[in-house]
Amino acid sequence: MVQYMTARLDTAFAALSDATRRGVLEQLGRADASITDLAERFDMTLTGMKKHVGVLEQAGLVTTKKIGRIRTCRLGPRRLEEATAWLDRYRRRWDERFDDLEQLVEELTRLENNDERKKRK
Amino acid sequence: MVQYMTARLDTAFAALSDATRRGVLEQLGRADASITDLAERFDMTLTGMKKHVGVLEQAGLVTTKKIGRIRTCRLGPRRLEEATAWLDRYRRRWDERFDDLEQLVEELTRLENNDERKKRK
Repeated sequence: MVQYMTARLDTAFAALSDATRRGVLEQLGRADASITDLAERFDMTLTGMKKHVGVLEQAGLVTTKKIGRIRTCRLGPRRLEEATAWLDRYRRRWDERFDDLEQLVEELTRLENNDERKKRK
Repeated sequence: MVQYMTARLDTAFAALSDATRRGVLEQLGRADASITDLAERFDMTLTGMKKHVGVLEQAGLVTTKKIGRIRTCRLGPRRLEEATAWLDRYRRRWDERFDDLEQLVEELTRLENNDERKKRK
């Protein structure tokens, strides 16, 4: 189960690591499109676009359906829940560490000031 | 500017597409660690771990400092803000599209029911 989720996170983040693939997802968020439409819009060969769509399909982010000669793409069933959850957790921890560091600096400054005051007396 | 952000998103998502690298970030969220510590913890060669840390460093997610023979790693300055923002935007759009689809289905069901009623009269 954990391994399954790990692999899914790998695939999801890898799918998102390319600007064209993110662009395709944004475009499909507006309207469904054929692979030909997408290739034209992103100024890319059909073969190149098919590869990108393949990666997105593997990650469950896009589904495609062929009717006649036209393969239409739309947003898939996966909503990147795990990816979002992972990022949220990570950022929370980052903030906590940063807060700890800030407290430490404040504490040290306070101690130093006390020291200064004592010396002056 | 936009291109700079695009490249940064590519690097960030690519850095996150590996379970070991995500594990290293989680570990450094708990405490700083040397590359040797990390290699041991993740049951990996020093060379392998150095590569992973290099990818995280490039993405600004980790910083390292060498004191004597030991290179210590800690969480870097980048907090994956852009990655989180992109994901949030994407999920919002996904939800909107899903809501639209639901409304359409409701609308069609209502029309169909009206039709049925008319026929029965």
